[in-house]
This record gives sequence, structure tokens and C-alpha cells, in this order.
Amino acid sequence: MRTEPTTYNLLNSISLPEDLRRLSVEQLPEICKELRQDIIKEVSCNPGHFAASLGTVELTVALHYVYNTPYDRIVWDVGHQAYGHKILTGRREAFSTNRKFKGIRPFPSPEESEYDTFTCGHASNSISAALGMAVAAARKGEKDRHVVAIIGDGSMSGGLAFEGLNNASSTANNLLIILNDNDMAIDRSVGGMKQYLFNLTTSNRYNQLRFKTSKLLFKMGVLNEDRRKALIRFANSLKSMAAQQQNIFEGMNIRYFGPVDGHDVKNIARILRDIKDMEGPKILHLHTVKGKGFEPAEKEPGIWHAPGKFNPETGKRIKADTSNLPPLFQDVFGETLIELAEQNPRIIGVTPAMPTGCSMNKMMEAMPGRAFDVGIAEGHAATFSGGMAKEGMQPFCNIYSSFMQRAYDNVIHDIAILRLPVVLCLDRAGLVGEDGPTHHGVFDLAYFRPIPNLTLSSPMNEHELRRLMYTAQLPDKGPFVIRYPRGRGVLLDWKCPLEEIPVGKGRKLKDGKDIAVLTLGPIGNIAAKAIEQAEKEKGISIAHYDLRFLKPLDEELLHEVGRKFQRIVTVEDGIRKGGMGSAVLEFMADNGYAPHIRRIGVPDTFIEHGTIQELYHLCGMDEEGICQSIINFEL
Amino acid sequence: MRTEPTTYNLLNSISLPEDLRRLSVEQLPEICKELRQDIIKEVSCNPGHFAASLGTVELTVALHYVYNTPYDRIVWDVGHQAYGHKILTGRREAFSTNRKFKGIRPFPSPEESEYDTFTCGHASNSISAALGMAVAAARKGEKDRHVVAIIGDGSMSGGLAFEGLNNASSTANNLLIILNDNDMAIDRSVGGMKQYLFNLTTSNRYNQLRFKTSKLLFKMGVLNEDRRKALIRFANSLKSMAAQQQNIFEGMNIRYFGPVDGHDVKNIARILRDIKDMEGPKILHLHTVKGKGFEPAEKEPGIWHAPGKFNPETGKRIKADTSNLPPLFQDVFGETLIELAEQNPRIIGVTPAMPTGCSMNKMMEAMPGRAFDVGIAEGHAATFSGGMAKEGMQPFCNIYSSFMQRAYDNVIHDIAILRLPVVLCLDRAGLVGEDGPTHHGVFDLAYFRPIPNLTLSSPMNEHELRRLMYTAQLPDKGPFVIRYPRGRGVLLDWKCPLEEIPVGKGRKLKDGKDIAVLTLGPIGNIAAKAIEQAEKEKGISIAHYDLRFLKPLDEELLHEVGRKFQRIVTVEDGIRKGGMGSAVLEFMADNGYAPHIRRIGVPDTFIEHGTIQELYHLCGMDEEGICQSIINFEL
Repeated sequence: MRTEPTTYNLLNSISLPEDLRRLSVEQLPEICKELRQDIIKEVSCNPGHFAASLGTVELTVALHYVYNTPYDRIVWDVGHQAYGHKILTGRREAFSTNRKFKGIRPFPSPEESEYDTFTCGHASNSISAALGMAVAAARKGEKDRHVVAIIGDGSMSGGLAFEGLNNASSTANNLLIILNDNDMAIDRSVGGMKQYLFNLTTSNRYNQLRFKTSKLLFKMGVLNEDRRKALIRFANSLKSMAAQQQNIFEGMNIRYFGPVDGHDVKNIARILRDIKDMEGPKILHLHTVKGKGFEPAEKEPGIWHAPGKFNPETGKRIKADTSNLPPLFQDVFGETLIELAEQNPRIIGVTPAMPTGCSMNKMMEAMPGRAFDVGIAEGHAATFSGGMAKEGMQPFCNIYSSFMQRAYDNVIHDIAILRLPVVLCLDRAGLVGEDGPTHHGVFDLAYFRPIPNLTLSSPMNEHELRRLMYTAQLPDKGPFVIRYPRGRGVLLDWKCPLEEIPVGKGRKLKDGKDIAVLTLGPIGNIAAKAIEQAEKEKGISIAHYDLRFLKPLDEELLHEVGRKFQRIVTVEDGIRKGGMGSAVLEFMADNGYAPHIRRIGVPDTFIEHGTIQELYHLCGMDEEGICQSIINFEL
Repeated sequence: MRTEPTTYNLLNSISLPEDLRRLSVEQLPEICKELRQDIIKEVSCNPGHFAASLGTVELTVALHYVYNTPYDRIVWDVGHQAYGHKILTGRREAFSTNRKFKGIRPFPSPEESEYDTFTCGHASNSISAALGMAVAAARKGEKDRHVVAIIGDGSMSGGLAFEGLNNASSTANNLLIILNDNDMAIDRSVGGMKQYLFNLTTSNRYNQLRFKTSKLLFKMGVLNEDRRKALIRFANSLKSMAAQQQNIFEGMNIRYFGPVDGHDVKNIARILRDIKDMEGPKILHLHTVKGKGFEPAEKEPGIWHAPGKFNPETGKRIKADTSNLPPLFQDVFGETLIELAEQNPRIIGVTPAMPTGCSMNKMMEAMPGRAFDVGIAEGHAATFSGGMAKEGMQPFCNIYSSFMQRAYDNVIHDIAILRLPVVLCLDRAGLVGEDGPTHHGVFDLAYFRPIPNLTLSSPMNEHELRRLMYTAQLPDKGPFVIRYPRGRGVLLDWKCPLEEIPVGKGRKLKDGKDIAVLTLGPIGNIAAKAIEQAEKEKGISIAHYDLRFLKPLDEELLHEVGRKFQRIVTVEDGIRKGGMGSAVLEFMADNGYAPHIRRIGVPDTFIEHGTIQELYHLCGMDEEGICQSIINFEL
């Protein structure tokens, strides 16, 4: 690694985009260099998303240089590419608090800055949202307001992006869509659209030629700015008419420009200026390199998507020694899936663009052809799994809890109605920490509980996860949901025999007389400590039950609890409304018990970002909070 | 209208597709004629979906003629085009019970017939499901099993279809996708994809030429069947290489054939045979006419999508006199929306392909440019509305309750987090009757209740609907859900002044001492009668409260109920788990009340089809059921 000189002469002069716009075009490459250096420096010591933002440095600078932000609307798709945008829009100072509790948010958020125009945690929504803004601008007669959506090629596999494109082409608007094509989502992009874009790139020399010609004529003085634009427009329409087969964008009435080098900031700025005031929807196809300008990230953009701390000089990642820690649930999932697949030839793995994150990459490597990354396409992942299950396969479909929201109808319509044996593994369930409100997996218990035919489970530890995975793939289990959190479990020795757990059977972990605590999932471990603490502090006797299953409920266990206890505390890592505590309330009411029930869980509000510990504390779900709830529970 | 001769010489000889396969190719046009006539005859007296199935008669016959069903898998997309399929697969006899309680199902269902391969109530899922089946077949080494998905051009606007295509092109499979292009969903298709397909049709003469040439050579004896196929393959690859810009399908590595006339059954059968054993994913583009062969339906396919009873001779629809009936909630919505939009220039209408069904067509006609049909694209409809709301517009986005499941993440991520003022109108909420389990709108209360920032409401009658709509568009209301059922209200004089309803404020409809009945939405009218009946029968005194809002709850009202009553009955037209009754349980528990609560609503199972009255009875939600629940409610 060489070190770039770290002078920030230009960057220091910029606090808002209007300062940037005072620079000359010739200064843009220098500001890009400084901005990139600043991102490297900051993220090396305050971990966050990295490689994606390095790839968009030039685009970010060009956008704020050409467009009149914040009046003009820039809509980022997946905010992890927008660190440069934050630094240039008044948050350079605050950037050291990025992703920290009460610090600046992990993704752009209109609640934080007027330069942030929309929520952008989940991929593929930018075209639809930006189209709405463009239509609104037209409706309000704001002809001078521009709207730009920036979408990565990985996000282009999401159906929502296509729905947006489809509608953009038939509704009057002047939207500009910038396709940031770097062949990557978090992992490598997959699917036909990627291939299609590649074909466009190799075959479509016409656009480049056209740009070169018009630039040349412009330089020679033959064309003034207006005429140059007119020529581009004319050539474009000629092409549309002439091409026997149009590219998909032009075929949908969306003007296509590109592909162009996404790291040539001067050229991008020039093109943006050229097409800025053209009427109608447009798409500009840029090629960028994820991790651009930081060699290790260019080489391994997947690992450097969110690398943790690293040395900006040497490019070495700083890893803590984890050898004495319990394993990640993700690793237990990945290893166990292979073990099961070795025994059960019907098992197939499916993940929508998260093979590394959920550790299905292990199976993809060990058993090629038996695990599929279907791209950012959660709905398809579920329905595709349903189709396989209908034909006797046993898919394990792993989707992060908050992304499962996007496959909600698919689970109901394409899995639950036919009771198809798909194992839905909900990774990142519960509060996820620094990724904030868009990523917390707190709704799944409440949104899946009303759906008939689903089995809903959550393991308290690694052994339970393995046993639930084993159980789920046994014959006739129907659709089977297993939710577990991001991060580490609690057992050093996590390998255990694969044994069946009777469906709907909970566990009594501890006897007690005064209060019953009912938990679901790993938060039961925190509750166990809280119980110990509360017993000590108050001299009461507390029973602890791990429900294991939210659906079907363990009726025998609940009858025991209903008969024996007047005070019940429920603890879940999910939203309180409609969740596990609510299920216990329903059971008690339906069966004529009338205990007092206190429900601990996430309150009815979107929880911001912070460490999981901080957020648990905020919600009264940490050891102290649970302990206090128990202690204060008087009749 | 001329009448076709109604002899069924051929059709009478067919009870299963294997009988069909014994016919000669030359007989196929005749069987199509008879099948079409049979559909017309049946649907004229037993109402159901009509025009779509007339359009697929030839395709249906050709599919079952060429493919070895049920071993080969035919996956219909939206089952309302599959009546011919039902009649040819052993259900001609039973077809008179179509859509009736305990009769054959409204859409193909594997629970009914082995010829029905997947759930197909919601559009756009066929490619994903069929791809799953094709991959499963490959995995099981069933090289002789073919899988065919049939998708309409309307369904091609759904993002899920695109996700399926995107994945089909990168996963090894031999899937055949048949694109049934008739320029229609239920209403006319919209969007860029429609335009793109049209362009393909006008520009892409090459395919037709190729087919004609190969057919000619074949007839001349120059080519045998094998060579002919080889020639087609070769020409196809040549074309792919030569075309400077590929069509989107070929660019995604999916072989494209067509477009061809979808009513030339002999030709379709020939083409299907030609491409049947080609490896890799393929798409066959057919042009069909929705309503084909029944003149009025060809002219007005929208109206004849599901026309009710009609005279098959004259083509006259048989309409009951409805002048003395209360209006449809849909009409009240449509008229009120225009009234509001005339006063509030910020109001914009959005519907995903249901303008006629939800009556937004009224606004589209009255105020062009202020209401958008965005195609079958529920996710986009919600996010697009979010984008507009972010810029100060006041969208009314109308989506059927069961289809809203497809926009679940969009509502959370793109509307609720930023508390954007989108009015989400959930039409077809509650049990919908004959359309069955895929269409019942019974989950919405339970799935939206856990989401922060949403206001959830349901009007008990037409006046309340108008007032809620008025209230929802006032400033600072944030995201506002209004759910109401399909069908008629209860008031003849439905026009009333537009007045604000305080958000979260319920109504006491009737005082009482012994039991409190809490209802939400129009089912409150049934409950009111049940209360009257129960008071008479049992001599008790029953209070009735209309909650109006599920969120925020009317705490004042609920405190009153909690203080005064030991017995509470909740009644809702939705799933019991997690719904309104559950919210009341939570409130009582959280506030230290311990009444006995009986929750009436849809049980934890998928409810089949039937009249709404039959289904209410089944679930104990009709007058009698509610009355009995009240009467039997002893402490």
C-alpha cells in the first residue's frame, strides 16, 4: 500500500455543496482524491460500509457540482454508497459519530439532513420514490426541479426497480436514473440483468461514439452547448428508430446514455450538464469499481464491503482475537446446513444476495449447484423455494428478517396456503444494532404469527439452532420458520448431535413459585441472568420457560403456567404489539386464565441505531431492564 | 349475436387430457370451438371470470395436446384464465359448481387436481414457481419432465415476474415461459413493458420469417423434424450474435420465439413440439384477444372480465335491479375521492391495475393526470406514493387488502418510517367470498398493527368512510389506512357532509350493563342485530362500541369498558391472531384490567370460497354466530 498525501486543501473549504459548486471543473479530480482519502481515513478507525462509497466518489462530486442540491433531489438506492454525499453535505465534522448511538445515521435519512431525500436502507426503491418526486414536481409546476435516482446494478435485480422503470416510462416525468454498474451487490451480482448490462456494454459502442463525436464538434467550435444537446437528442431518436431491436430501456421509452467511465469526474459532470434539462425519463449507465482507489478493496470488494477497523496505510484489517468466543449464529447455520445437506439429498439452499452475510457461501462452495444466490429478489427467493418444495425438494431459504418483509405475500400465497415444506431462516432477527431502523428485524414474530400453517420457532442457543434446523427438514413439517439474531451465541462447544425437537414443545429451564418468565430465542439468556439477579435482590422465586415455538404454542406448558401463576412476564426480541406476549395473552384469555401479564419487548416506535447493548437498554430489554420489570411487578 | 351450434361431439369424448391427445391435429380447431362454447354456456348461468379464459382456449388445448400433463407441469399465472384447463382436466361435470361453497375452486389449486400445479390467485408468480419446479426436476434427474409457465402481459409489470426472469437466465433449467400478450390485465395493461412488447411485435419480423421458412422447407421435404429444429436453433444463435442489440429476453440468455397468433391452435401445437425439448430457458410470445370468440367480450374485455350472468345468445348481461340497494363501498370511495380532490389540489390517486375494481377510474376520467394506474405493481404503488408524499402531495393509494401483502415492506420502509402522509385504502378487506383463500383480505389488521406511525381505521358505514377519507387528507395525519370490504354498505342516502373524525376516537353506539361488544368496521352492523337478538333472547343488557380505529386505540373508551365490564366480546372481519381483539387484550393487560374477553373473527386457517354469508356462518361471524357467542358467554 502506498499512502496518498493527506492534505485536504480543497475539502477543508467545503462545508456544503454550494462551496463545491464554486470550484472549477479542473479542480474536481483533486477534490475527489481528497474526499476518497477522507473516507478511507474515517472508516479505518470508525467502522462502517466502505467499498461502495469509494466507488461513488466521482459520481457524488459530479452530482452535487451539477445539480442544485438540496432543491434538486438526489435519491440514493441503498445508502451505504453515500458516505461521500454525507461528507459533502455538512456532515464531515459529525462523520466520526457515524453509526454510533445518537450519532449520524448509517444511511441517508431526511430526518437528519435536507440533502437526504428518502429512506434508503432496502435496495431497489430509488426509482419508484424518485419517480414520485418527479411527478410531484411536475404537478406543482416546479419545472426547474430535477430528480435523480442512483441505483446499483445489484439493486436492478429487485422487482421493485423494474416496477419503477415500467411506470417511469409511461408517466410524464423528467427523471434521471443513474445506473451505477460495478458488477456487485454486497456479493457479486447475479442474474440475467447483469448479463444484459454486460452485453449492452460490449455491443453498444454507438453511444460512446456519439458522445465522442459531439464532444469533438463542440471543442472545434462547430457546436454551441444548445446545438450539441440537440444533436445528441436527434441522434438518440434516430437510433431508436433505426435499431431493429431497441435496448430494454429505450424500448420502454427511457432514453439511454452510456456506458461511461464512472471515475472520470470531469466527463460525468459534462454529461450530467448535457442531459440535465432534457425532457422525459433518462438513464445514464456508469461503470465504476467498487472499492476504487484502495487496492485491497478493489481486489476483494465483498470482504471490504464493511471491513471493520483497518490500517489505512498497510491495508491490513484489524481483527480482534475471537478464538475464545462462542461462534456466530451465522457460522453455525452455514456449517449445519452442509451437515444436513450431506444426509438429505432433497435439501437446496436459497439466498437473495446474502451468501456471505448468512454463511450460505459455505454450502455454495462445498456443494455447487445445490445452493443458489438469486440476487436481490426476496419475493422470488420465497416463491422459487415454494416451487422447488412443491416438487419434493427441501429448500432452506435464508433471508434477513427485515428483508423478509419483502417476501410477505410470497410466504402466504406461494408457501403457506399449500403448506409447502420450505425452511425459512430469518437471520438478523431482533434489534440489529448500528444499521438502524430499516434493518431491525423486529416485526417478523408479529407479522408471521397470523399466517395459518406456519411453524414459528427461535433457538435460545447454538444447540437449539442445530436441532431446530434438523427438525425442520424432517418429513411433513410444512413451512418452518427459524429466527435467530446477528452475532454470537453463548456456547463455546456448539457442535452437538442433531436431534429432533417435537414441534410446539417448549422447555422449563427453571422452577419457581412467584412469577413465571416466558422467553423466546436468545434473549432468554439475558432473561436468565435477570431472573437470577431479581431472585437475589427481592428474595422471590421465579420460574423460567423457553417457549421455543411461537406457533404452535406449547399448550401443555402454558396451561401449567396459567394454573400456577398470577404474574407472568414475557420477553421477546421483537415488537410488543402482536408478538409473543400477545400470543400468551390470547392463550390465557381463550382458556379462561386471568393472570397479570407484563410484556417486555420493542415498543411501538422505530428504534434508531446504536450498539445492540445500547438499544436493549433503551427498550428495557437488557439484564437490568428485565430485572427491574420483574422486581416492580406487584399485583 | 349469432349462436354457435352447440354440439359437443369431440368435447364429450374427453374427460382427461390423454383423451385429447388421441385426436389428430386437424381436429384441434373443432375442439377449441366446442370448448369455447362450453365456457360461454357455463359462465353465462354460473357467473365467474370469463374473457380471460376465452382468450386462452387454443393455448390450453395445444398445451395439453403437446405436453404429457400432469407429469409435465403447467403453471398458470392468475388462475382466471384457466377455465378451459379445468374443463379438459376432469372437471367438466363439476364445473357447474365453480366458485360455489364446497364446489370447485375459483382458481387452479393442487388441493383440487393433480393437473393444477401451484397456487395462482396473485399475479406474476408463475415464472418463479415454475423455475423452482424446473430446477427440482433437474436435481432429481427427471430429464423428461417439462415445465411451462403461462404469464399474461399484464402480469409482466409485476416485479416478481422480472425477478423470476432474471434468475431463470442464470440458473440451469429448461423452463418454457409463454407470454400471453393480449394488452390486458383486468383493465388495459400499462407501462413500459407493454410498449416494449409492442415494439418487439412490430419490429421483430425475423422470427416469423424464420418459422415460415423452416415450415416451408419442412413441407417440401428438405428438412426432417430433427433437422428443422436444428435449423431453428442455429438461426436463433446466429441472430443473437448478429443483432447489435438483443431483445431483453435474449439479452438475459432466454431464447425468444414469436410473436405468433395465439388463436391458431395447429400452429401453436407445432411450435410447442418444436421447442419442447430444446435445452435452456425459452420464451414464446403469443398474441391473443381477451374475450376471443364472444363479440361483446372482445369489444369490452374489461367489463366482460367477470360479467355476472348473461344471455349467451344475445350477449346481454343480466343485471338485477339495484336501485333500491345501498351503494357499493367502491362507488362511495370513487365519488368521494373526486369530491376531495376538487377541494384539495394535493390529492393524487394511485392504483396498481385495479381502476375499475376500486372505482378510481372515476377520478382518472374526471381528472386526467391526477390519478395513475401503475400496472400490477403493488410495491411500486406504495413507494411511488411515498415519493409523492415526501414532496407535499397527498396520495390516495388504493390496493386490495390481500394484494397489500405485496407492498408490506414498502409501507414500512418507504412510508411509515418517515411518517409520510399516504392514505392507504384497503379495498376488499375481510372475507371476500367466491374468490377464496388467495383473495380474502383477512390479515391486514394483524400485519399493520405492529407497524409504528400508522393510523389504522375502518368505517362501519358509508358516512364513516367519507368522513375517514376526509380526515385522512387533512394536514399532519401521517400514513393513514382505511380498510373497507367489497360490496354494498347499509345506507341508502350515503351522501353526507365531509366532517373530521378525531383520530383514535371510537363511538358508543348503545349503552348496556352486562356485556360490552366492541366492533371494528361494517361487521358492526351485523353485530348490532346480534346484540338486539341476544338481549331479547336472554334478557341481558349489552353495550356496543364501534372502535373505528385499531390504531391509535381510543384509550378513553377502553378505560370505560375496562372499568365497567367483566365480559367483553370483540368482533372483527379479520384473522383473530394478532388482530383487534388482541389489541384489546393488550390494552386491558397493560392497564391492569382483567375482564374476560371473547374474540370473534377468522380462525387460524385458510378459509375456502363461498358466498360471504356462507363464510361468515362458517366462522361464527354472522348474526346467529355472534348472538350465540354472546349468549353463551358465562363467567
